[in-house]
Amino acid sequence: MSQPYDRVFNFSAGPCTLPVEVLEEARDNLMNWKGHGLSVMEMSHRSKVYIDIQEEAEADLRDVFRVPENFEIIFAQGGASLQNTMIPMSFLGAGQTADYVVTGTWGKKSEEAAHFVGKVNLAYSGKDNNYSQAPDLTSLEYSPNSAYIHWTSNETIQGVEFKTDPKLPAPSVCDMSSNILSRPVDFSKYDLIYAGAQKNQGPAGVTIVILSQEMLEKTPAATHPMLDYRQYVSGDNMPNTPPCWSIYMCGLVYKWVRKEGGLEEMFRRNSEKAGIIYQAIDSSGGFYTGHAAKDCRSIMNVTFRLPSEELTNQFVKEAKAYKLDGLAGHRSVGGIRASIYNAFPKEGCETLASFMKDFACQNG
Amino acid sequence: MSQPYDRVFNFSAGPCTLPVEVLEEARDNLMNWKGHGLSVMEMSHRSKVYIDIQEEAEADLRDVFRVPENFEIIFAQGGASLQNTMIPMSFLGAGQTADYVVTGTWGKKSEEAAHFVGKVNLAYSGKDNNYSQAPDLTSLEYSPNSAYIHWTSNETIQGVEFKTDPKLPAPSVCDMSSNILSRPVDFSKYDLIYAGAQKNQGPAGVTIVILSQEMLEKTPAATHPMLDYRQYVSGDNMPNTPPCWSIYMCGLVYKWVRKEGGLEEMFRRNSEKAGIIYQAIDSSGGFYTGHAAKDCRSIMNVTFRLPSEELTNQFVKEAKAYKLDGLAGHRSVGGIRASIYNAFPKEGCETLASFMKDFACQNG
Repeated sequence: MSQPYDRVFNFSAGPCTLPVEVLEEARDNLMNWKGHGLSVMEMSHRSKVYIDIQEEAEADLRDVFRVPENFEIIFAQGGASLQNTMIPMSFLGAGQTADYVVTGTWGKKSEEAAHFVGKVNLAYSGKDNNYSQAPDLTSLEYSPNSAYIHWTSNETIQGVEFKTDPKLPAPSVCDMSSNILSRPVDFSKYDLIYAGAQKNQGPAGVTIVILSQEMLEKTPAATHPMLDYRQYVSGDNMPNTPPCWSIYMCGLVYKWVRKEGGLEEMFRRNSEKAGIIYQAIDSSGGFYTGHAAKDCRSIMNVTFRLPSEELTNQFVKEAKAYKLDGLAGHRSVGGIRASIYNAFPKEGCETLASFMKDFACQNG
Repeated sequence: MSQPYDRVFNFSAGPCTLPVEVLEEARDNLMNWKGHGLSVMEMSHRSKVYIDIQEEAEADLRDVFRVPENFEIIFAQGGASLQNTMIPMSFLGAGQTADYVVTGTWGKKSEEAAHFVGKVNLAYSGKDNNYSQAPDLTSLEYSPNSAYIHWTSNETIQGVEFKTDPKLPAPSVCDMSSNILSRPVDFSKYDLIYAGAQKNQGPAGVTIVILSQEMLEKTPAATHPMLDYRQYVSGDNMPNTPPCWSIYMCGLVYKWVRKEGGLEEMFRRNSEKAGIIYQAIDSSGGFYTGHAAKDCRSIMNVTFRLPSEELTNQFVKEAKAYKLDGLAGHRSVGGIRASIYNAFPKEGCETLASFMKDFACQNG
């Protein structure tokens, strides 16, 4: 099975595979966008031609993600990591407490960043189960008058994913970086969703923040300009020069998601693709061990281990012969991680599963 | 004179024209970068192939800009605007005062952002001269024990540019967004230089910060992760996922600058290009009026006025017939602004000057 343009099956956790036809459109318009005489990279962000591109991207995201009218969409910079500071700066006032649910590396980083701003309650830590489980968020104990509850819907490094949209007793603030647009979401259960673009949306460099107007009104009246959600909303999403190219690329991806059948179809494909690899793990007679508990296995990042580090390295190396690229687990946890976001082709999952079977036979 | 790919002469102030051959290289490698089987937009930022790209960009910037070894180079996000907050957060301690020299809109924004952090002294304001002059920075009066002196080497909107590297009595912190790499710079006179990429470096989405190790040591031991210069330096310029594509594009531009002859040649070309337009202003018998005082006329942004707003609008409209695009002045000041950064071709300046002459004849 050869990929177009002799491309690899790219299992990277983000930045990651983008749809081939999206890349083709970007390439074909790179020197002169649709006859306007310049590249999207060269357009003044205040020009009509660029403003139309950005507004269309925003409208398409609202459409495919079914974002209600009472939620604002912001294109920010600094990655999800800067949101880890902007969120407590905006919503964790003096004398208040924010609750953090930590089910993996990214949740831990969010919690740590909040400590620089205000009082934090660790409502749940998966440290004792080696970040392999997703608790029932509706039955945890939170702070009285919690400013908000922060959680991570999919832990990219551990491959631990929440499967539902929980109804929480305080504003629900969710880092959805690695599974946004992978399934439909019930916005009535959320108050703020944020996500770096570089998994299911586009290239790195832009961060999507979707927050309710009710949340927006809770932010301080005036604060550091670039850390102030109000300045994004009131300034047409351009408090300064936005990362135009990344937003343009996201816009192309949103259109691709819709064309392919929307989030229901993405969810169907993602479940099927992940199922192929989890099946290879579970039928290996213990040669491969999944990291996440079965009820919270991610359909975006499939994480598993081999019997030894030596075999793990050999696996990563031999996989390259089949154009299976980017399979090494995050440097902090090791093992194997197969990230299979929306644009990752089913053929790549089949090729991996087939390789896993052969590798286990030869080395088991 | 027709442009390759039927492109316009793009006078936008940023994002702006990039070198045609840089865009061509990006296009030709977009689907599969140099045979690695994926786009730069799809590369894991922790992969060797991407790390090499970023390190090469950093080394090339150090080379063409002649950045001394005791200065660190950081690739940040959030634009120069976020630096307006990070700088006082990092260097303006309790009980200290920072001096701000305001010669235009961007300096004013920098000063305003610093007020959210600490005590600010307005060492100079060009408000009374309508931001048309650049004072002698070595003879201003600054605060005793000033934390730093902030200035803007080129005001993009007003077209006011400082022509030398002043020796200041406190750390010199310079927003060089719109004239970085336009001429050689004497780093011994600077402590921190920052610049959004989207003028002389690449597409929007990355901000270059160059600071001395001495400055770095003045930053707080620990603070908000993404607002902490130390975390960029200690984390190989990747405290989180960097804006990979923008950095890649900047890297291509740095190589182009070197190939074209480096900063001495850029300065020669820019002076020549700007001279063509200023000559058209000065020889118009008063039909066109330059905004900046003659001794601080920018060689990056040439700003001028016509006798009326009506004629200004007509000028912008008729210019389009000659593929002269993006000439309207910033919405806050009006008039005409011709931004002619490194990659802007001399032919575009000649075409504009010729059009200016004809337009003045017909309407003067």
